[in-house]
Amino acid sequence: MTKTRALILGLAGAALVATSGFAQDANPAVTARKAQMQLYAFNLGTLGAMAKGDVEYNAEAALAAAGNLVTLASLSAAAMWPAGTDDMSIEGTRALPTLWESMPDVMTKASALSEAAGAMAAAAGTDLASLQAAMGPLGGACGDCHKAYRAPE
Amino acid sequence: MTKTRALILGLAGAALVATSGFAQDANPAVTARKAQMQLYAFNLGTLGAMAKGDVEYNAEAALAAAGNLVTLASLSAAAMWPAGTDDMSIEGTRALPTLWESMPDVMTKASALSEAAGAMAAAAGTDLASLQAAMGPLGGACGDCHKAYRAPE
Repeated sequence: MTKTRALILGLAGAALVATSGFAQDANPAVTARKAQMQLYAFNLGTLGAMAKGDVEYNAEAALAAAGNLVTLASLSAAAMWPAGTDDMSIEGTRALPTLWESMPDVMTKASALSEAAGAMAAAAGTDLASLQAAMGPLGGACGDCHKAYRAPE
Repeated sequence: MTKTRALILGLAGAALVATSGFAQDANPAVTARKAQMQLYAFNLGTLGAMAKGDVEYNAEAALAAAGNLVTLASLSAAAMWPAGTDDMSIEGTRALPTLWESMPDVMTKASALSEAAGAMAAAAGTDLASLQAAMGPLGGACGDCHKAYRAPE
């Protein structure tokens, strides 16, 4: 390895450590999938607040949030869900072992989420009633996977 | 509001609260942007480990990680960076106020990150040398924004 390449990799490594410093102890895959869930929750929260009337409907903000859900659902998930990261194997997760034994169903549920997010993206910029109508299937798609594969708190 | 709609929104809300339960106290926008950084770090970590030789090069895994960086860089960021969420205004963030006063430069740096992620996605699946060559500009793009707009720990 050349000196320049070593320096470049060192810099990249330093940037990475600096970024990930706030969760050194957790399993990185679990940290990553929780981060994805946080981003789902944040964008769903924007839409939910409008749907419930807590925040005034804003087509641009609604569309951005819905688009983010579609984007998040398109992330490649395999590396975030390695075998051995269920709640029987490690601390810090509520993912049930059955998730890894039910991959075809997990994939079906993931597709349902993508579809519900896509439907929200198609509806969110139209008007509040359309947003509200898309909210149920979206929350349902989240809940279907949680109910099946996440341990109670 | 019909009973059915109220029920649907209630269910969606419950799913949301259950998902976001682990960070109730923090500013939601800060939590969301930190989650995005975590996901950058996780995928950059996969590529960095291969680049340094800590993990054997795997074209499929490298391509998935690089693709995730491109996807993450495409998230709409406005809602995660509202005014008043700098480190002089609130706890729990290292974002400097100058970030909000330098939006054209922030956008330039964001575009540079997208470009570096795209270059990595084009390189990562080819071979290890290509991945390594794309690592420097990618780490540099992360670091450029951190150096300019993030307070030291």
